[in-house]
Amino acid sequence: MGANEIKNIIDRLKTKKIDMDGKDFLLTWEKSRDEIEATFLVADALRAMRDAGISPRVWDSGIAVSNFRDNSTRTRFSYASACDLLGLYVQDLDEGKSQIAHGETVRETANMISFLTEAIGIRDDMYLGEGDKYQREVGKALDEGVASGVLPSRPTVVNLQSDIDHPTQAMADFLHLSHYYGGLDKLKGKKIAMSWAYSPSYGKPLSVPQGIIGLASRLGMEIVLAHPEGYDLIPEIVELAERQAKASGGAFKRVHSMDAAFQGADIVYPKSWAPYDVMQKRVPLLHEGNQAGLKELEKQCLANNAKFKDWECTEARMKLTKEGKALYMHCLPADITDVSCEAGEVAASVFDRYRDDTYREASYKPYVIAAMILLGKSKDPAATLAGLLKRSSARSAI
Amino acid sequence: MGANEIKNIIDRLKTKKIDMDGKDFLLTWEKSRDEIEATFLVADALRAMRDAGISPRVWDSGIAVSNFRDNSTRTRFSYASACDLLGLYVQDLDEGKSQIAHGETVRETANMISFLTEAIGIRDDMYLGEGDKYQREVGKALDEGVASGVLPSRPTVVNLQSDIDHPTQAMADFLHLSHYYGGLDKLKGKKIAMSWAYSPSYGKPLSVPQGIIGLASRLGMEIVLAHPEGYDLIPEIVELAERQAKASGGAFKRVHSMDAAFQGADIVYPKSWAPYDVMQKRVPLLHEGNQAGLKELEKQCLANNAKFKDWECTEARMKLTKEGKALYMHCLPADITDVSCEAGEVAASVFDRYRDDTYREASYKPYVIAAMILLGKSKDPAATLAGLLKRSSARSAI
Amino acid sequence: MGANEIKNIIDRLKTKKIDMDGKDFLLTWEKSRDEIEATFLVADALRAMRDAGISPRVWDSGIAVSNFRDNSTRTRFSYASACDLLGLYVQDLDEGKSQIAHGETVRETANMISFLTEAIGIRDDMYLGEGDKYQREVGKALDEGVASGVLPSRPTVVNLQSDIDHPTQAMADFLHLSHYYGGLDKLKGKKIAMSWAYSPSYGKPLSVPQGIIGLASRLGMEIVLAHPEGYDLIPEIVELAERQAKASGGAFKRVHSMDAAFQGADIVYPKSWAPYDVMQKRVPLLHEGNQAGLKELEKQCLANNAKFKDWECTEARMKLTKEGKALYMHCLPADITDVSCEAGEVAASVFDRYRDDTYREASYKPYVIAAMILLGKSKDPAATLAGLLKRSSARSAI
Repeated sequence: MGANEIKNIIDRLKTKKIDMDGKDFLLTWEKSRDEIEATFLVADALRAMRDAGISPRVWDSGIAVSNFRDNSTRTRFSYASACDLLGLYVQDLDEGKSQIAHGETVRETANMISFLTEAIGIRDDMYLGEGDKYQREVGKALDEGVASGVLPSRPTVVNLQSDIDHPTQAMADFLHLSHYYGGLDKLKGKKIAMSWAYSPSYGKPLSVPQGIIGLASRLGMEIVLAHPEGYDLIPEIVELAERQAKASGGAFKRVHSMDAAFQGADIVYPKSWAPYDVMQKRVPLLHEGNQAGLKELEKQCLANNAKFKDWECTEARMKLTKEGKALYMHCLPADITDVSCEAGEVAASVFDRYRDDTYREASYKPYVIAAMILLGKSKDPAATLAGLLKRSSARSAI
Repeated sequence: MGANEIKNIIDRLKTKKIDMDGKDFLLTWEKSRDEIEATFLVADALRAMRDAGISPRVWDSGIAVSNFRDNSTRTRFSYASACDLLGLYVQDLDEGKSQIAHGETVRETANMISFLTEAIGIRDDMYLGEGDKYQREVGKALDEGVASGVLPSRPTVVNLQSDIDHPTQAMADFLHLSHYYGGLDKLKGKKIAMSWAYSPSYGKPLSVPQGIIGLASRLGMEIVLAHPEGYDLIPEIVELAERQAKASGGAFKRVHSMDAAFQGADIVYPKSWAPYDVMQKRVPLLHEGNQAGLKELEKQCLANNAKFKDWECTEARMKLTKEGKALYMHCLPADITDVSCEAGEVAASVFDRYRDDTYREASYKPYVIAAMILLGKSKDPAATLAGLLKRSSARSAI
Repeated sequence: MGANEIKNIIDRLKTKKIDMDGKDFLLTWEKSRDEIEATFLVADALRAMRDAGISPRVWDSGIAVSNFRDNSTRTRFSYASACDLLGLYVQDLDEGKSQIAHGETVRETANMISFLTEAIGIRDDMYLGEGDKYQREVGKALDEGVASGVLPSRPTVVNLQSDIDHPTQAMADFLHLSHYYGGLDKLKGKKIAMSWAYSPSYGKPLSVPQGIIGLASRLGMEIVLAHPEGYDLIPEIVELAERQAKASGGAFKRVHSMDAAFQGADIVYPKSWAPYDVMQKRVPLLHEGNQAGLKELEKQCLANNAKFKDWECTEARMKLTKEGKALYMHCLPADITDVSCEAGEVAASVFDRYRDDTYREASYKPYVIAAMILLGKSKDPAATLAGLLKRSSARSAI
């Protein structure tokens, strides 16, 4: 990829009608199709620049706040890599270290950390009904801060995983698919199986499967959502996916059989999650710090999970997919049978065959995040990218 | 604010007689009036540059050590923002993670962390009689390191809050006042009420009220320090403020009535702190790790606090101030009655009315810190700023 | 040092035959003599540039991973300083915070953190037989990541201390010696006493003494390794040092007397370590989390240590060295008798006399680390340095 390729991407970006400046990236379904495509194009342009040795650094200085309310390795590194690529310094807002626990309101903290801040990445996926709400509260506080002249500019909030959506994951996944199949349009009509899979752990958030069906349904894909009875996602998101699938010329089906889901699939995404009602029950227990209650809920949930150990992405199941060659996807880390656990989401031989694909899938995340930040801050992202290309400063002196 | 405004600031800076290069910023009363004003001017210049899109980045690389011996959100972010603005990378010196606990002397550590370091920010406010002492010990070690040729240059130490002063807070507060009233000279004769206020918490450091009276008394202001009997500050600091007030043509009065303090005040700063003698008693208990003793002291102290629940900044009290319109100030977070606690330092309606003002007050802190660092490192800060202005590189490619 | 001096260093670098690009720096004895010298030259060049105010910044953006599996202040700061000097942003891989504990394989993590990463620094010295192995596993995973096209380039792994070697320490130590004596060649024939010394603590890793004998034996030095009976190092490393000493025209002797070691020594390095067999016994206990077992082992080990309290670097012993003026070395922090402990590795008066020398010794570490990174990433380091010199951008606007 050289300068011409990048110019081509910028030209395509110019054709997109977008209104993202000063806005946050919280849910893919709040973004128009053009805005989704613009995000992919900016991600591709930034990656192409870096690969060509051209610095995509936008800022000379500036803070990117990192607010992780849950553990993370890959998203933390993706966010740090994205911010550093754009020239932002990542400052953790660690609520253990901070005074948030001492009665500070979200409103105040949002302003206090934002005087020289360009982006705020938030991961808050453990509390059903609260993560997305919190992110919006931060956004609203920032709007007020700008309106009252307290903040010189509006930092953009990037959802690094909420209770509802995981847009940096879903967008990276579909940018991967777009490159794998040679274009986003090629996904139309492709069958994707988003399937629950067995895991010996418990309490995995719903945001990945919700993010996948929430985005796949925008692209005219044939979606099959599969899970054992009782392992529901948030009902409103499933309904949304149904509506969106219809509108985009795709299809949406729900089944309680992994085999049925895999049948003829182009793409399979076997991944464990906790049932919606368990996630609901957890919230008050977490708030109360009710360890006994959480322990008991975990016990029940693991016992129930154990009934569905056969929900595994095995070689036999892969044979059911289109020509036996469906693309396997996972947000990683996967629970791999006989590798990371006795019985897990995927057979070792299947995972091995697709390992590099899953790594490539993950490699898009830093660029997707960087694109979200740039689009949330630039009035004319095509002009910004063209400026970087024209500047053509080297990323490295080596 | 454009280039002309910045040039004007630089011209005013040139008229100040200062000797700050190679020195630390530990206590405002160790700095001359010209040095205080120079710090404000540099802060204004840096802010104006950033607002105009001109990069105030001074360093291409360099370390800024962050040493927080107490929790902090806003000061941590202010320090990180300031350092990043100047081009420094913040590296935490976390004594939990480090080997300091294993017998390393301050002298050695100060040198070991400083080979490529430009600034060291230290917050150490919990141990009365020790915070300031520790900061001076670090400074002395750095002097020796430079003298012996171990260190290529002298990192500047910035007091991010000690047991005695909180200069980054006090300086931000008065830069806010200077802009609010249209100039530092306008503060002459203004009445400021630095008043204790009730809080349901305990052990708040003395450095904020001490910092406020220590700086207000330099500016010819009429200071009223108000607190219940027994809630003394460090006696030497109060005496210093009295002397300074006299010397600067201001006044200093001490009362045991919040009403008396608010009477006719232009500015009110109602803020809780722990009594001096309680802070003294805490130190050996903290050193011993005497949890039972600390618990008992807290109990006594909270019981005593509870006698003064009426020390609240209410609407009624605000009516006592000049035209009922005194400017309310707080270092944040405030204990707001019915918001962050049942009974606190300030009524919700008062705080609400001044919320944006307190946020603006806080917004000066990053620039004040950046100014302290620049002045501690530059032989000719006016020339340095003029160079940045002449360079006029853009802070952002957007 | 000015531009001519730097050009001279670059010219000398051009004469070295090296193959370091794309390789890791794990053990000094895996590097050729030319590669060792090249590392010293690059370190000197980077330091000279910084001293001359010329920015040695190589990268405009890029991640440097910091993976410390053991506490550290000085190495952590050295690594951060080195990375920042080159333009890299340090992102901690904190296994407490990350998902590594949840079954992620090294292979996967190595790839996930490396999409935009240039360097990975790893400290893993507590588990005998595992630290070096882990670093190689990471390196292998990165090789595979590059081979499969997952990673755009190969991050270079720097050993920040393993169970076997501590190359950043040993290289800094010998760069210090090289400058102290006026050239690496001057070390030929010099007698260095690497001696165990008493410490009231326990479990200190073997990597420092192993690193010292592993590197001294490459340089034609006369090495005396001294320790009480039973305080062995890893036998293979001692044998390696013996072989290397012979090959380089030096000598290697092992004694059980500190006096014998100090006799006529040019350089003394008195430093505590835990016996090899104790370190072996610790590993399964650490893995089991067997606190009782570790406590018991510590008790035994401290009791045994106490028999050798006379293994102290005293003034009397220093008199035995060449003209009574041997250079004292230590990786710091030293256990100083009557300062950091009742009885320790070195007498206070001896340490005081050499304090500045030990600080200078430590000051080379950031530059040695920066050199290792640059050499691991640059195909033509002489050209890279010449480019930086030609660019001559100022490190600071002051």
